[in-house]
Amino acid sequence: MSTINESPRIAVYGLGAMGLDIIRILHGRRANIVAGIVRPGSDKDGRILGELAGVPGLAFPARGDAEQALREAAPDIVVVTVSTYLDDTQYEIFSTAVKAGANVITLAEEMLYPFATDSRLARELDALAKRHEVTVTGTGHQDAYWVNLISVLAGSTHDLGGVTGRLSWNVDDFGRALAEQQRVNATVEEFAQWQADAERLPTFTYYSLYALAAAIGLTPHGSPECTTEPVIAQRDTYSKALGSTVGQGRLLGYTDTDTLHTKEGVTLSVSSQGTVYEEGETDFNEWNMTDGSGNPTLHLRNSDLKTAHTTCATLVNRIPDVIAARPGIVTVDELPQLRYRPGLHVS
Amino acid sequence: MSTINESPRIAVYGLGAMGLDIIRILHGRRANIVAGIVRPGSDKDGRILGELAGVPGLAFPARGDAEQALREAAPDIVVVTVSTYLDDTQYEIFSTAVKAGANVITLAEEMLYPFATDSRLARELDALAKRHEVTVTGTGHQDAYWVNLISVLAGSTHDLGGVTGRLSWNVDDFGRALAEQQRVNATVEEFAQWQADAERLPTFTYYSLYALAAAIGLTPHGSPECTTEPVIAQRDTYSKALGSTVGQGRLLGYTDTDTLHTKEGVTLSVSSQGTVYEEGETDFNEWNMTDGSGNPTLHLRNSDLKTAHTTCATLVNRIPDVIAARPGIVTVDELPQLRYRPGLHVS
Repeated sequence: MSTINESPRIAVYGLGAMGLDIIRILHGRRANIVAGIVRPGSDKDGRILGELAGVPGLAFPARGDAEQALREAAPDIVVVTVSTYLDDTQYEIFSTAVKAGANVITLAEEMLYPFATDSRLARELDALAKRHEVTVTGTGHQDAYWVNLISVLAGSTHDLGGVTGRLSWNVDDFGRALAEQQRVNATVEEFAQWQADAERLPTFTYYSLYALAAAIGLTPHGSPECTTEPVIAQRDTYSKALGSTVGQGRLLGYTDTDTLHTKEGVTLSVSSQGTVYEEGETDFNEWNMTDGSGNPTLHLRNSDLKTAHTTCATLVNRIPDVIAARPGIVTVDELPQLRYRPGLHVS
Repeated sequence: MSTINESPRIAVYGLGAMGLDIIRILHGRRANIVAGIVRPGSDKDGRILGELAGVPGLAFPARGDAEQALREAAPDIVVVTVSTYLDDTQYEIFSTAVKAGANVITLAEEMLYPFATDSRLARELDALAKRHEVTVTGTGHQDAYWVNLISVLAGSTHDLGGVTGRLSWNVDDFGRALAEQQRVNATVEEFAQWQADAERLPTFTYYSLYALAAAIGLTPHGSPECTTEPVIAQRDTYSKALGSTVGQGRLLGYTDTDTLHTKEGVTLSVSSQGTVYEEGETDFNEWNMTDGSGNPTLHLRNSDLKTAHTTCATLVNRIPDVIAARPGIVTVDELPQLRYRPGLHVS
């Protein structure tokens, strides 16, 4: 918990597509960017931050020596956009920021609700953040479109039986690593083999279902059921992320479906389709609610979404909430209602 | 502010279509309904509440003597569904409840943001509620669909320039009084005459724009601009509310557009079309956002809405928030995030 009456000092850790878009948004809001950090050995180490992001000013170099850079810059909050899961590497990054006395806000999908699994690292990070009296929060597109809009919508219903989401996102928006993870250009046989062999980590929606349950005030009952179906190219389709064409009959990506039951009898389910888009396709989120008898009640659709950009904008709008929150890991269901921030001032 | 660890005691003041639907919802949630109140002289005075609402139990009569009934029933909160504006009659009803030590939650549209106009009655009611340490809040469909969903959506954007809503609701859902107010079955000439003569009160969206600005954290700049356009029947159309047919060329209703500018440069605008529906039409809310250069950014659509029912369900889900809120008039932008309430328990 902090009370800061001026513009907070912000560091950005991770200078890939997302980190740089966040820097551009922060720069547009005249935010106080005090450091850009990359992993040691990155080819961006030492390059000028403003040049990397394509904005004027920010005439200082990206740093590979996180600990030293954080000590010198003394940020109020560190934006972390490095990877998805709370693994040892990610823990190391978060704990370096926490030990430097900074709050952490991250796009790491697991951090949206790290208590969804029995995560030792989440418990340790929570204790560490409490000890250093700072907050650690995961946010992003999910915060608005998979959790809080849906919880507000459910607040207008009487008899809630089920919530079903259908999401579509473009693999090409997120670069090569994600395209490979999403099995783009695999054959059906390769995909089947991968599915048989894979020890897959939980999906992004796995965490979001727990955050949604928490936001609505529901108690999970058992673990989510998870299924995966391939999405096959009907014609040759160019993938920007791979820099090559996905042949007809090969995978554009796949659809994951997670279903979480709750003690209150409400079933929460999300199907997330991540594929290389064909011409004219755009991101959407579609949510349907049913009553206790399965009859449709409420419907919400966001179309023409720019998921990558809303991810970054949501994170920026959440910065004051995270700085003001109690110490420890604080999930988005606990934060005040998400809102637009013409400025980033915290009080 | 109250802390109630058991199910709150709820009275319902106003037993028209909305009041009775709220009673049915409350009954479905096993809420503790302790009184039903009508205006003195109402033909429902003395009739059994459960029979009026069509639910088992509630074997006590509706009461026309509000003061006495509230003293005996000692509700924690009074649901008021009598009329739209904070006029002397409405003030009298609210103040009777407040003086009985009860919180008030109401569908009165002006109460969504009674400080939108320079309302002497709002200031008096606010002071009275503070003196009696109870909360008065206006909610309903607007709370979810015109204010808080939109504010959360705006929380996922970077550069907010404009917010535009397009709403459609069915006059036939709300009974004869509203159909007459909406000029259903007037000729175009009658409508023009009415427009020329009418000293119209602010629209529903007038108040919601102020609530939306407050929820987003924007400061109104000047008063809203308001325009009204008739909606003409293209063919003979039956109106359930009037119990008669609207002839081709006559009014099905009209569309009001309110536009509010803000000091932050963001323009908020809503067009609300209230008409007798033709076969197959359903309620919808559609919202579009633009950036500072006027380019479209975000889009949200709720279709197949049952506005009357979501109005009542939203009110019921807000009961715990209102009981827990600070004393005085508290508008929905100040309440915690709207959510579904499997039960109505307050802590």
